[in-house]
Amino acid sequence: MKFCSACGGAIELRVPQDDNRARHICTACGVIHYQNPRMVIGSIPVWQDKVLLCRRAIEPQYGKWTLPGGFMENGESTTQAAIRETLEEACARISIIDLYSMYSLPHIDQVHLFFRAELLDLEFGPGQESLEVKLFSEAEIPWDELAFRPVRYSLEHYFTERERGQFDLHVGELTPVHPGAKARTTAI
Amino acid sequence: MKFCSACGGAIELRVPQDDNRARHICTACGVIHYQNPRMVIGSIPVWQDKVLLCRRAIEPQYGKWTLPGGFMENGESTTQAAIRETLEEACARISIIDLYSMYSLPHIDQVHLFFRAELLDLEFGPGQESLEVKLFSEAEIPWDELAFRPVRYSLEHYFTERERGQFDLHVGELTPVHPGAKARTTAI
Repeated sequence: MKFCSACGGAIELRVPQDDNRARHICTACGVIHYQNPRMVIGSIPVWQDKVLLCRRAIEPQYGKWTLPGGFMENGESTTQAAIRETLEEACARISIIDLYSMYSLPHIDQVHLFFRAELLDLEFGPGQESLEVKLFSEAEIPWDELAFRPVRYSLEHYFTERERGQFDLHVGELTPVHPGAKARTTAI
Repeated sequence: MKFCSACGGAIELRVPQDDNRARHICTACGVIHYQNPRMVIGSIPVWQDKVLLCRRAIEPQYGKWTLPGGFMENGESTTQAAIRETLEEACARISIIDLYSMYSLPHIDQVHLFFRAELLDLEFGPGQESLEVKLFSEAEIPWDELAFRPVRYSLEHYFTERERGQFDLHVGELTPVHPGAKARTTAI
């Protein structure tokens, strides 16, 4: 951020009075431009013993499989975001069951949420950000071709807990993956 | 938003190719400036049968009581945000138990989350955004002087569920309050 989006003035990075961290502040009009994490919201659309996945037609992770999801938009609720993203990416209609996972990724300023959901019919197909959309049983999940860790962990928990018949909310934090290092997940 | 924060160019509002809603786009460098909801994160700090509340020293809702909470910052996790805000506003140390409520407020592009938490000691006091900080039993809660609806609803659910000994996650949406109208809450 170099210019003020309100007046076009030059931006400086400094700690405002009564604050404790550096902010982007306009040297002309004085407006403080706060920057905050963004929410990525998706669903785990379930039909009988299967879960609906999308193969990505966009970067990052082009060609990899993911649960339908994307950035929450202004003017909507978290469940509306999950329903909209599932419709946009998989052309699929769902009914939300409950919040299932919330992973913070502080190194990229994102929080990823997935809701368990019931797929309402089999009229699905690829939206413009998907190459293909398909139902997978647990044995069929392409574990080595999944796009993002919050997707992988949500699916792992889902299938484990489906076995025992009880679903818990999963809240955790994901640290960066360094080449050669094993990713670390911290739960509450 | 009138000016591009990257290059200072003029901003226009239009629907980009392959998108379905109007975005702020720079007419000079072409950067799309997405705007997304912000997360407000707080805690329900519990000591024995009491909950810690803060009386606000800032607008909005100056002088009203609230649970400690505030905007999630870049570079932190959701639980770190709850712990930090509780320390900043109530000078109090907590241990997070679990996520308790998540309310979307789409009319102001916010999502409010509260975590149940254990207050670790009695060394609390007002931070710079609080006039006073105090423990309240259920009978003492100043219900008519609470600052925000997510705070009120989280506290109402908390005390009801403490009675029956089981806590559930509450996910809902709050619509605007019009003068004279009763606020509407929609749960999943």
